[in-house]
Amino acid sequence: MSLLEKIDGPEDVKALREDQLPALCAELRDEIITTCAAGNGAHLGASLGAVELVVAMHYVFDSPRDRLVYDVGHQAYAHKLLTGRREAFRSIRKDGGLAGFPERAESEHDAFGVGHASTAISAGLGMIEARRMKSEVGKVVALVGDGSMTGGVAFEGLNQAGYLERDLIVLLNDNEMSISPNVGALSEWFSKKFAGQTFNRWRRNVKEVLHALPHGDSAIEGIRRAIDSSKALLTPGILFEGLGFQYIGPTDGHDVISMVRILRQVAAAEIDGPVVIHCRTTKGKGYAPAESDLRTRGHGLANFEIATGKSVAKKPAVPSYTDFFAEAVSEHMAKDANVIAITAAMLEGTGLIKTKERFPERVYDVGIAEQHAVTFAAGMACEGIRPIVAIYSTFLQRAYDQIIHDVALQNLPVSFALDRGGLVGADGKTHQGLFDIAYLRCIPSMVVMAPADEQELRNMIATSLEIDGPSAYRFPRGSAVGVPASPPQVLEVGKGRVVHPAGPNPDVLIVALGTTVHPAVAAAKSLQAEGIRAVVVDPRFVKPLDADLICDLAAQAGKVVTVEEGCLQGGFGTAVLEALQDRKLYLPVERLGIPDHFVEHGNSDKQKVHYGIDQAGIVAGVRRVLGLPVQLHGAKAS
Amino acid sequence: MSLLEKIDGPEDVKALREDQLPALCAELRDEIITTCAAGNGAHLGASLGAVELVVAMHYVFDSPRDRLVYDVGHQAYAHKLLTGRREAFRSIRKDGGLAGFPERAESEHDAFGVGHASTAISAGLGMIEARRMKSEVGKVVALVGDGSMTGGVAFEGLNQAGYLERDLIVLLNDNEMSISPNVGALSEWFSKKFAGQTFNRWRRNVKEVLHALPHGDSAIEGIRRAIDSSKALLTPGILFEGLGFQYIGPTDGHDVISMVRILRQVAAAEIDGPVVIHCRTTKGKGYAPAESDLRTRGHGLANFEIATGKSVAKKPAVPSYTDFFAEAVSEHMAKDANVIAITAAMLEGTGLIKTKERFPERVYDVGIAEQHAVTFAAGMACEGIRPIVAIYSTFLQRAYDQIIHDVALQNLPVSFALDRGGLVGADGKTHQGLFDIAYLRCIPSMVVMAPADEQELRNMIATSLEIDGPSAYRFPRGSAVGVPASPPQVLEVGKGRVVHPAGPNPDVLIVALGTTVHPAVAAAKSLQAEGIRAVVVDPRFVKPLDADLICDLAAQAGKVVTVEEGCLQGGFGTAVLEALQDRKLYLPVERLGIPDHFVEHGNSDKQKVHYGIDQAGIVAGVRRVLGLPVQLHGAKAS
Repeated sequence: MSLLEKIDGPEDVKALREDQLPALCAELRDEIITTCAAGNGAHLGASLGAVELVVAMHYVFDSPRDRLVYDVGHQAYAHKLLTGRREAFRSIRKDGGLAGFPERAESEHDAFGVGHASTAISAGLGMIEARRMKSEVGKVVALVGDGSMTGGVAFEGLNQAGYLERDLIVLLNDNEMSISPNVGALSEWFSKKFAGQTFNRWRRNVKEVLHALPHGDSAIEGIRRAIDSSKALLTPGILFEGLGFQYIGPTDGHDVISMVRILRQVAAAEIDGPVVIHCRTTKGKGYAPAESDLRTRGHGLANFEIATGKSVAKKPAVPSYTDFFAEAVSEHMAKDANVIAITAAMLEGTGLIKTKERFPERVYDVGIAEQHAVTFAAGMACEGIRPIVAIYSTFLQRAYDQIIHDVALQNLPVSFALDRGGLVGADGKTHQGLFDIAYLRCIPSMVVMAPADEQELRNMIATSLEIDGPSAYRFPRGSAVGVPASPPQVLEVGKGRVVHPAGPNPDVLIVALGTTVHPAVAAAKSLQAEGIRAVVVDPRFVKPLDADLICDLAAQAGKVVTVEEGCLQGGFGTAVLEALQDRKLYLPVERLGIPDHFVEHGNSDKQKVHYGIDQAGIVAGVRRVLGLPVQLHGAKAS
Repeated sequence: MSLLEKIDGPEDVKALREDQLPALCAELRDEIITTCAAGNGAHLGASLGAVELVVAMHYVFDSPRDRLVYDVGHQAYAHKLLTGRREAFRSIRKDGGLAGFPERAESEHDAFGVGHASTAISAGLGMIEARRMKSEVGKVVALVGDGSMTGGVAFEGLNQAGYLERDLIVLLNDNEMSISPNVGALSEWFSKKFAGQTFNRWRRNVKEVLHALPHGDSAIEGIRRAIDSSKALLTPGILFEGLGFQYIGPTDGHDVISMVRILRQVAAAEIDGPVVIHCRTTKGKGYAPAESDLRTRGHGLANFEIATGKSVAKKPAVPSYTDFFAEAVSEHMAKDANVIAITAAMLEGTGLIKTKERFPERVYDVGIAEQHAVTFAAGMACEGIRPIVAIYSTFLQRAYDQIIHDVALQNLPVSFALDRGGLVGADGKTHQGLFDIAYLRCIPSMVVMAPADEQELRNMIATSLEIDGPSAYRFPRGSAVGVPASPPQVLEVGKGRVVHPAGPNPDVLIVALGTTVHPAVAAAKSLQAEGIRAVVVDPRFVKPLDADLICDLAAQAGKVVTVEEGCLQGGFGTAVLEALQDRKLYLPVERLGIPDHFVEHGNSDKQKVHYGIDQAGIVAGVRRVLGLPVQLHGAKAS
């Protein structure tokens, strides 16, 4: 019987002898690799890199009394395996299975839900402060990757932690590579490349004096050595100590025995204030293919062969929207020297890694720093550059004020490319791109588009680069539609198109946005067979909306169905309601989309059926608005 | 003739002799003080503190070829006076006058529009990078206050600036006090209080060796002195150098002659990479009342007597919403030990400074760090604390992802108190609180309220603290209504109230939110005199909306007017449209609110008239929806 099989909770970890821990780590690795190999984009590398840290935390601390707060959360697989979720683990990220990230609702051991980066220090500080107020015992440990440290909120948290002087314990998991190689000056602190001029000047001065003194004198040699070693001062230690933290490290984060000893000392000590323990680890540790894949080290790997790490996932017949996006960006860069692209630690995810190979100077990876990405783009746009800011829909939430205050208010021509707009599947709640239409639509001067397919995406990228102000296009995760390619067209801003005409006096108008356009056309065709004449409009633009086209056809049809892969509250269908009201058209409108709740992880095709935004769902919506009986289908009909 | 009178642009500053600059600074101070004394909440202290820095910048650099980027922008008055806006300066922040902050549309010398903090480094970096790409000459100088450095986006910008190694020049205007005294460990770097353990250990070791060596030997005494002086290493210099910046300073930011020399050296040098010049200044410099007012040093001062600095502004008859808010928070703290409040550098602005006097341990000022404020609150809420996060509507935009990802997604009971929700008057475009309803309403599990008056605010604060999940209430800037006080009532969530009944078969339903409730009642009364029976509903809750009440009355009346002090796109009126559609009520709805543009600074009462959300505007809206002739009034009727 393996060690892991006997572990149903942290107390079983604590029952092991210290010398059994390395074996437990090996078993955890096997289980993680096996599960990820059969998985759907699981975070293999991060979780492998943190196995010893997680085991050491559970061995020394006492969850849930002590709170273990994971930053980003994709390093938490070992934590899930050790906290009563071993049996369920193989279901991770699958329909109805475990979530890919910690979730408070899933386990009392998940102290803080997460998915976006850089939040653990702030959340952990809140917890330790609350417990102090309530005179409760218990430690709070935040496990934070070095990549997360570039996010501004992490720095904001450090700044207050040092000031409040509470006993927050930060485990800095430094693998010198988050998703993409880390960028920014901060990583130079970590990698000790740093040399300050003030320091070097001082050091030179002291050395000159020393030079004049006799060699060989042992005391003076001692000073000489000390001055030489003073370079070691300029480690992350000084940075963190300067912010009020005690600093321990760097230490080998894969040596579970010594990690246990260090954590024990920290846990037992009367610490007066926050501590950071700097642990060096290797992403993908213990699995050669992940360790050696410099590009991603197993970030978001789909089905693969364990022996080689090679993907055995069925290659989709049609490339992804992401691929088409990156290719189009390259084409625009080739034509226009003023076009540049910016990503926030998502060179792989946005596809821009390929663009960067071709135009290394014109693709900026600013690290996990969405706010800066947007304001940096605003600064460039002031100077006549055309920046494309490529950030997932869900992560762009983090730059909301910068979009409003730095870009839109100044009407600067920044293009926002929102990948993962809509349902995201396995990443789940924290990553759903469902709010973008609502949160962008209320911003004055912002143009908002959603492509029906990859050709439309190409058209919208071209259009966006011609607009003399801010614009955004949101496109979904996954394979594109597979329509024939043609040269990109600059669209007329604010003009929609009829994608399925129905002749005079249609029975119903379907206004379908983005991913729902093709299903809506299919729905209209199937309705035609029943004798229901549905005209389908692809508005192309959420804003400005083609109110003329929509209202004119709505008036003809008398009944309207709107469809979108986004939130219903304040979303696209709502924009249609506003337009109809403004034109004094008081008509029945059936709005199809995602209702007012957070959407769990799961198969997004099934979810589209559930929410009634697939072909059959649109048919049902039409039948409802026409007052016809509806067959049982998805959520709407239940 | 004074020096200032001859200055119509930066070239006239450059034409002065260096020894005339102190006199120019004195004249600028006089003009700023005179204007602010007659002003409406101008930023006196910040602008006085930066006079010499601004003069030195214009003397050495060549705007607009060189870009001067102001952070926050409230220190830019001298800049406005020197760049062709001297005549217009006395109109600053007034209707149709100069904006209170730099605005690209106002002058070619305003390189980047601003109002929120911490953006200058990112924007400046974008500019310098763009100019490098375009092979354009010209420097970029960012003037940043120390308070702004705590904002995460500033750190994100520093991190990339150090990495890109472009010649960005950062003037750090360190007055050790932004709006409230600076908090956080960062300010300890600046104030040299810091001592790191690693460093101290090393220093102790070297000193022990030195101790054994003969005293009196001049070389060894030299080393001894050097080691003693090594403490000076631990200044902001090391922090910035560690992030890849050259560091110059600290220097006296009020010595204009030496500032000119330093800037000349920096401008002339072949700098390879970014530079920070650390200038110490005094907020309110040169005006004794502002220098000595420790609380605010003249941040946002209204009319005052120049000799004493004492306000001569008419004291409003009714205290502000802010006052009522702070008082209510104190009352809840007195009753419930679990209630705490958090502000982001706005102790004065949110009124919480009074609450903090009474409960010093339970009011947290986290500095300019809205993101951290929200996630810190989320961490506390996990532990059973009831945090009230008090952030202006416009600044809460900066924590949008934290509201969604850290609070709402986990359904944590955090109360968001949004002051300055609605039109803000003189602060203008960057500070309007017009998007909050739209951006909060699409977030699942969020309860959103808006009080009609101060008693309703009290009720909503009490209600919010009883809700087992996230909730927000937005209230306006300025005086409350002056209704009789009664003990706060916990409201039933999602229930509105009829505030002006009209008996059976009303002619029209008015649904008025927040500040528009009392004007709507007045409008209904005046309509009554014309024989038009309007029933008025105060929904209290934007979300969940009282669809039963609203739809029932809408069905009776057949016509609806909605009113809100917020954006029309996706706002409250839109929520009413959604509710009516969901209930299959296809009725005329006239939505009154702020149309889809950024609103300039100006008198907010006049603006309410302009946008037709005052009493007369509501009357006009009712007449329109009833198809009656409308007298000319505000914008809507034109």
